[in-house]
Amino acid sequence: MSVYLHDIPLSQAQARLREALQDADLWRVLGDEIIPLDENAIGRVTTEPIWAKVSSPHYHASAMDGFAVRALSTVGAMPSKPMNLSMGSEAQYVDTGDPLPDWANAVIPIENVESLDETGHITSAIRQPVSIRIRASVAPWSHVRPLGEDIVATQLVLPAGHVLKPVDLGAIAASGHQEIKVSRKPKVAILPTGTELVPIGSKLKAGDILEYNSLVLAAQVKVMGSEPTRYPITKDDFDLICERVLEAAQDHDLVLLNAGSSAGAEDFSATVVEKLGQLLVHGVAVRPGHPVILGLINRQSKIENRKSDNLKPNTSHLIPIIGVPGYPVSAALTIDIFVEPLIAQWLGRRPLELPTETAILTRKLVSPAGDDDFVRVVVGRVGEKLLAAPLSRGAGVITSLVQADGLALVPSGTQGIEAGEKIQVRLYRSRAEIEKTIFCIGSHDLTLDLLAQFLSVHNRRLVSANVGSQGGLVALRRGEAHLAGSHLLNPQTGEYNISYIRQYMPNIPVKVVALVGREQGLMVKKDNPKRIKSLRDLSKPHVQFVNRQRGAGTRVLLDYHLNSMTISPESIVGYNQEEYTHLGVAAAIASGRADCGLGIAAAAQALDLDFIPLFQERYDLVIPKQYAEADLLTPLFGLLADPVFRKAVSQLTGYDVSVMGTIILED
Amino acid sequence: MSVYLHDIPLSQAQARLREALQDADLWRVLGDEIIPLDENAIGRVTTEPIWAKVSSPHYHASAMDGFAVRALSTVGAMPSKPMNLSMGSEAQYVDTGDPLPDWANAVIPIENVESLDETGHITSAIRQPVSIRIRASVAPWSHVRPLGEDIVATQLVLPAGHVLKPVDLGAIAASGHQEIKVSRKPKVAILPTGTELVPIGSKLKAGDILEYNSLVLAAQVKVMGSEPTRYPITKDDFDLICERVLEAAQDHDLVLLNAGSSAGAEDFSATVVEKLGQLLVHGVAVRPGHPVILGLINRQSKIENRKSDNLKPNTSHLIPIIGVPGYPVSAALTIDIFVEPLIAQWLGRRPLELPTETAILTRKLVSPAGDDDFVRVVVGRVGEKLLAAPLSRGAGVITSLVQADGLALVPSGTQGIEAGEKIQVRLYRSRAEIEKTIFCIGSHDLTLDLLAQFLSVHNRRLVSANVGSQGGLVALRRGEAHLAGSHLLNPQTGEYNISYIRQYMPNIPVKVVALVGREQGLMVKKDNPKRIKSLRDLSKPHVQFVNRQRGAGTRVLLDYHLNSMTISPESIVGYNQEEYTHLGVAAAIASGRADCGLGIAAAAQALDLDFIPLFQERYDLVIPKQYAEADLLTPLFGLLADPVFRKAVSQLTGYDVSVMGTIILED
Repeated sequence: MSVYLHDIPLSQAQARLREALQDADLWRVLGDEIIPLDENAIGRVTTEPIWAKVSSPHYHASAMDGFAVRALSTVGAMPSKPMNLSMGSEAQYVDTGDPLPDWANAVIPIENVESLDETGHITSAIRQPVSIRIRASVAPWSHVRPLGEDIVATQLVLPAGHVLKPVDLGAIAASGHQEIKVSRKPKVAILPTGTELVPIGSKLKAGDILEYNSLVLAAQVKVMGSEPTRYPITKDDFDLICERVLEAAQDHDLVLLNAGSSAGAEDFSATVVEKLGQLLVHGVAVRPGHPVILGLINRQSKIENRKSDNLKPNTSHLIPIIGVPGYPVSAALTIDIFVEPLIAQWLGRRPLELPTETAILTRKLVSPAGDDDFVRVVVGRVGEKLLAAPLSRGAGVITSLVQADGLALVPSGTQGIEAGEKIQVRLYRSRAEIEKTIFCIGSHDLTLDLLAQFLSVHNRRLVSANVGSQGGLVALRRGEAHLAGSHLLNPQTGEYNISYIRQYMPNIPVKVVALVGREQGLMVKKDNPKRIKSLRDLSKPHVQFVNRQRGAGTRVLLDYHLNSMTISPESIVGYNQEEYTHLGVAAAIASGRADCGLGIAAAAQALDLDFIPLFQERYDLVIPKQYAEADLLTPLFGLLADPVFRKAVSQLTGYDVSVMGTIILED
Repeated sequence: MSVYLHDIPLSQAQARLREALQDADLWRVLGDEIIPLDENAIGRVTTEPIWAKVSSPHYHASAMDGFAVRALSTVGAMPSKPMNLSMGSEAQYVDTGDPLPDWANAVIPIENVESLDETGHITSAIRQPVSIRIRASVAPWSHVRPLGEDIVATQLVLPAGHVLKPVDLGAIAASGHQEIKVSRKPKVAILPTGTELVPIGSKLKAGDILEYNSLVLAAQVKVMGSEPTRYPITKDDFDLICERVLEAAQDHDLVLLNAGSSAGAEDFSATVVEKLGQLLVHGVAVRPGHPVILGLINRQSKIENRKSDNLKPNTSHLIPIIGVPGYPVSAALTIDIFVEPLIAQWLGRRPLELPTETAILTRKLVSPAGDDDFVRVVVGRVGEKLLAAPLSRGAGVITSLVQADGLALVPSGTQGIEAGEKIQVRLYRSRAEIEKTIFCIGSHDLTLDLLAQFLSVHNRRLVSANVGSQGGLVALRRGEAHLAGSHLLNPQTGEYNISYIRQYMPNIPVKVVALVGREQGLMVKKDNPKRIKSLRDLSKPHVQFVNRQRGAGTRVLLDYHLNSMTISPESIVGYNQEEYTHLGVAAAIASGRADCGLGIAAAAQALDLDFIPLFQERYDLVIPKQYAEADLLTPLFGLLADPVFRKAVSQLTGYDVSVMGTIILED
């Protein structure tokens, strides 16, 4: 084995796996089983066509409560010329669902007849008359459900390879079945490996990594229709891993070996596969996720003794193994790309096909030209445009998958895609959900998290992208968001936002609403070990500062005060080290990367930092008029006046809700 | 109670139920429970926001295998000016995921350094050198995953009311949780009632109705996230039903009382609800499904003793009850319309919203003006048009729900919608699935069922509508199908289809391919009790005939032969009684509605009828050229040459596959 893995194109990797499984006779429905026809059959896959054993209805059934008659006997009846029919020979009472008498071929609904007694007068015993009077004829087979109206015996009810839905179960029952043959669920073993791994819930020390990939993988393959088994963590020990893999191979159909799939010092997966069988692929040109391993390993020969309830079990001596990369995003995508089609094949259903839409990219994407690059995006409709906003591309950022509405593909051969260009997105959510998405861009504020939480109750999803206040106004001008959060101080006038709005968004009518007043100040480590008291202290040589990015309101505020205090940015160590959110700045300080940064009190409190309040500022929502008046935003304006929401915000440290909802500007 | 139920508009009925539940404090999340964070949490709904307890990563982690360094120490290194860094003080080896030493703020990947031994020469102990040589500087925080890159402690990870997906479980674990608070599953009791009902799998006699609604209802509410309980069948006995309802009310959150919801002699549901509580609604102006009952009933007071693992159980003395209509389509739609939003509310998630598309209606729909009428439709794209073809509208036809791609709404206030007009369709399937749909129209043949079965393996769905051969050609002209099955004999030339194609589809280039040769003849009852031998016998007075509809190829064939034999249609009893398929004709004979009809041998065999062969005919597929060349149909042409498919067809009685695939015409 070479130290460095060798990436091959995705389609080639998929083909190698498929061909190897075909050779091993494992690219097929693995086996089937007969299960009772009950609600647990939902989602199972039929392995043979279902043909009707009986017709439904299996007799001519009355479709109404009324009187069964011969249609011919009613000919000539009309309002002016009523006709009497005698019970027994000419008419018979039937409830809905009752069989018609042999001689009858139509039903007259009870509300269309007059029930008569022996004297020919109307009787209250409407269902037990002596005769009935009718005032209209009926056509043959009126109000009758003829035999086979729903299902004719011998007809095809459902094809093989059908994923069972609730109504399907009814049709299968109606056609005379009480059990059903479905594919058996593939059994998938999930083996987490890594000396640095600790189980969920462990108390963490530096270097510990929470082992949650096996949880995500198990949940993924379960949703796909298989039965997962999660094994305990195995440490990085070649022999131990081999032993565990062989054990799992005994009674599973697939082994997922998580992490150790790259080419590092402790990456044993490839050598394990080589030792136990055949390494088919090591490395696929796909991002995230390229250090994927695909292989087949040999089972030991306990198979004969296996107790099995399956008619056609997997008796092959070979079993596929997939070395899944360790980064959580890579791991999850590896399952989608390689495992889903395999489970689909084993179950006999079609592989999942996500709906694809064309969207407009909001930010430039750069990508290695040789790789298929899957980028997680948030998708929303702003005006007429369907937009795709890229999320964090780090393979370790699982929250990017949590937030993603879809996957945008930057295909291999492309070096990148410019902002404003079209991109294909595979959608995780329905268009209906996406239509409920409010795109908020601009400066970050913790109130937006609370707003998102409250809006979700009102069937809206608030997605915020943090690009700083100025970035938000530019995005609004380009029609890339419904609203922007902004706290841009005009150093000349002391007023917030308005002059910037006119500068960055000329000719766009807007509504500006105050969201909150909030304190800005310096976040410092607990107990302020460097004794920082004001902006002057930032120039001290031993003080490491962390800044916000250019265009952020907090950066404008800093520059304004530095200027008025004639402090040179060059004198500040770390002035060029930029973070994109208040929490990012707080995290930099908490971790020791910096000693202080400018930000809001709530962020400092969140990470247990000290806070030195310096200024009060206003944070506004800037909303182009066309969206301010749209249904989509109605619940948002409702919340600004909602006492429960206002109270929740006021409980954040350093927030003042007295201005909330005040209209600052309305064009 | 009045004998006849009183329909109110749908929105009013929904509001009445909601308001009554609000008054009873039952329009809320019913309760919650803490569950372990494992793969069984998928699909559960969070009842409170999830805030991060820890950051992820919780330390600065190396993102590569390499050497941790101070970025500042690397300034000045270039290809022409390499720089050496000593291990220990200036560089330290780290694997991916390892914490950075306190003094380091960047990582240089191992492949970018030269590892040196104590003599300053390159060593093969690449991870244990004495010093390293670098030829480029690195920026601070290069190849480092800083603390909080994914999750910052205290941040919002997921809001309340979120339906958990696999990756969400990973994010929750990564943020320091090992259990999770979710809404408890509502418990739904399903009570089938009806003296005529028999359990699935029973041997049937006339009047028996297979009880499968409780199965469909249980499966539906299970998919929606609740726990169903199916009760045994209760016969139509007021006291027994009351007793069973009260029993079910004890330990459930909702009672579904199936059938007996109308106003017939044995329809007890409304009186049961009135006796046990409050009848809110009896009858909703919605089709199918209008005899719906909504009510609240009083629980008996065993509640205090209930063992419950829920923190906030439903301790109300009231419990909603829904009287579900008996027809299976009505029953299933009642669950979608009334129960789904209720379960959503109880679980704390959003109600299901099906994606809606605008489609063009292929057939006129007539509807009672006062009702919201839900029509099951098949949806497919033909050329540029998205078409909606109505399925059977009978409330008893569950196969119409099985086949449906969506529900088209004819709103109340509308008397109907013309063919060719636009209609809103709520889609059950994704657009991707719909794009794989082949619309076949025209004459029915059993081979089409087999074709559907074989095509499903090739990721195509064949949907056939039976409108007769001529109807099919007209539909092709109107752009409403991809292909038509046709067997139209030209009485002048003895040739099939071509002259009709030119007449009905002028100027449309087509490809015509032979599908099968088949026998047409008279289907008669087993042992032919009326001694029918030829078309001449149809004129005998005691012979009841059943015909195919006008435009059907079989009808053309009949008329051709009647004409050549100078038999008058008026002399045939039942000539005007029309069925739309061969199996429909066979079912009419099997059930005794008719003595004989013209059709194919396979249909006779399917229903165990005798068959008197009379003629041989050819059945063709007519395909407009634009579709003949499209990807969509490629698998169909493949099957015509596939020996397995040909063999399957040849095993149908009366079929000759020697012509299969022969090109009859290609414009």
